[in-house]
Amino acid sequence: MARKRHFGEIDGLAVGQTFTSRKEVAEAELHLPLIAGISGGESEGADSIVMSGGYEDDEDFGDVIIYTGEGGNDPNTKRQVDHQKWDLRNQALRVSESNGLPVRVIRGAQLKSPFAPSEGYRYDGLYFVSRSWSEQGNAGFLICRFELIREDATPPVWPSRSDAQPADPGASPRVRSTIQRIIRNTQIAQDVKEIHEYTCQICGTQIQLDGRLYAEACHIKPLGRPHNGPDVPENILCLCPNCHVRFDRGAFVVSAKLEVRDRVGAEFEGVRIRTNGRHHPDARFFSYHEGLHPQDNRESQS
Amino acid sequence: MARKRHFGEIDGLAVGQTFTSRKEVAEAELHLPLIAGISGGESEGADSIVMSGGYEDDEDFGDVIIYTGEGGNDPNTKRQVDHQKWDLRNQALRVSESNGLPVRVIRGAQLKSPFAPSEGYRYDGLYFVSRSWSEQGNAGFLICRFELIREDATPPVWPSRSDAQPADPGASPRVRSTIQRIIRNTQIAQDVKEIHEYTCQICGTQIQLDGRLYAEACHIKPLGRPHNGPDVPENILCLCPNCHVRFDRGAFVVSAKLEVRDRVGAEFEGVRIRTNGRHHPDARFFSYHEGLHPQDNRESQS
Repeated sequence: MARKRHFGEIDGLAVGQTFTSRKEVAEAELHLPLIAGISGGESEGADSIVMSGGYEDDEDFGDVIIYTGEGGNDPNTKRQVDHQKWDLRNQALRVSESNGLPVRVIRGAQLKSPFAPSEGYRYDGLYFVSRSWSEQGNAGFLICRFELIREDATPPVWPSRSDAQPADPGASPRVRSTIQRIIRNTQIAQDVKEIHEYTCQICGTQIQLDGRLYAEACHIKPLGRPHNGPDVPENILCLCPNCHVRFDRGAFVVSAKLEVRDRVGAEFEGVRIRTNGRHHPDARFFSYHEGLHPQDNRESQS
Repeated sequence: MARKRHFGEIDGLAVGQTFTSRKEVAEAELHLPLIAGISGGESEGADSIVMSGGYEDDEDFGDVIIYTGEGGNDPNTKRQVDHQKWDLRNQALRVSESNGLPVRVIRGAQLKSPFAPSEGYRYDGLYFVSRSWSEQGNAGFLICRFELIREDATPPVWPSRSDAQPADPGASPRVRSTIQRIIRNTQIAQDVKEIHEYTCQICGTQIQLDGRLYAEACHIKPLGRPHNGPDVPENILCLCPNCHVRFDRGAFVVSAKLEVRDRVGAEFEGVRIRTNGRHHPDARFFSYHEGLHPQDNRESQS
């Protein structure tokens, strides 16, 4: 019988742990398939990848990986002989991208990279898929490509970038970008999004992508210091990105009757939060959220 | 005459550099005010803060800071004697939050924190404001609070978290969240958002927050490896978060006539991108973007 796919860390397994064979990797439940580079299902997402030199177009920068999807290559010569398609496990990695699901990365000694282990296979921690696209590979066929970025509380086994990688003298100057916003996800939040079929509980928008849906989970009482809101369904809303920004920044608050109070306009005033027999947000968390964003603090609090 | 406020690094100044006085800090152009903890303007945003123990409620975790806004404290006792308001420089930090503007952080020796320098003042790099809210401070008055997270290419002068901070035995288990999406900004992107008054160039949505507007800058040919799109106005769109997700994931492409091709529905098909006499996206970048997301790669590319 099929078990539910496990995303994220494996209890008892540490970053940097090594294995002598793919069979050992599978027995540790890090990456179950013995041959395929991607472990995943088209609707659930991908939970792990192995990098072991099977695709000539892979690029490895340690904390950042440009990974090639699967299909279209000759298993003997490893050269591309056909186009890759956005289906099966390539599509699984796209679902991981849309939903922010963590992907376990395992490197093998056959990988041509300064970050490959000297022998066997090594677990290198969790990454997230930040981008995916098609491009013409070295052999002239379309390949599916993914950028993965490392995001693990445990530092990697290699030294930090600033020590390891002197600036490439031929590279163009790095654009100085800053972070405007980080959207996070958790397993429980993922479940809430699925209950609502990725439909915004405030405005009803359902964002469709190619073969996937997109929504964001919003913790009503925020996770993390100093709020320490719990990661439980009662503290989570399934929102579109636009309503998520408005809620997080206090442009919306929600009453005990689950009605929106629109602080900056009339568009959403009085809208009742969509609920569902399987998911009931708790009014106490809305009350905490409203306390973080008191009305007219700007003018009259003095 | 007023100069334009400078956000981000100061050329020639390194992370870790120290100064003997606030006057020296100001002369280096790191933080111009000699007394105020926040440097910023209500509409432009805040470009730097100094942490030097002026507010009893500040909490310093190194890479993460819980910072208290200004106002309402007695300059002699440093105790809160009145509420703080969301105006002036507190509002400036909120604008930095909405726009993802980098904030230079300077720590002073008077700060009660393991991350304070032993003497004088030290530049600790760029942070971004990830959250802001009101809460009742230790003295019983409402205070304005900000979470800032370090985001600098140069490592900090203190050891990394995993080395420096053994887990607090009293703390609740850390929620395992993963990143779903990171929204970045650049100075040039910020200019494009201002030209469009934060109105989405595809759907026309303008997101209003309390006293601020919110939009995201989308690089049409992506920044970074392997695309290396340029950070120029011709390669940037001002979008609402919902249209940003759709464009980045290839649900929208844009023709040479600047018309949207909606790949998954009819809602936005044929909509013409809003332009403006001061901003003209370049059709070559839209063509590159379409190449990353070829239609029907899922079914027919074989």
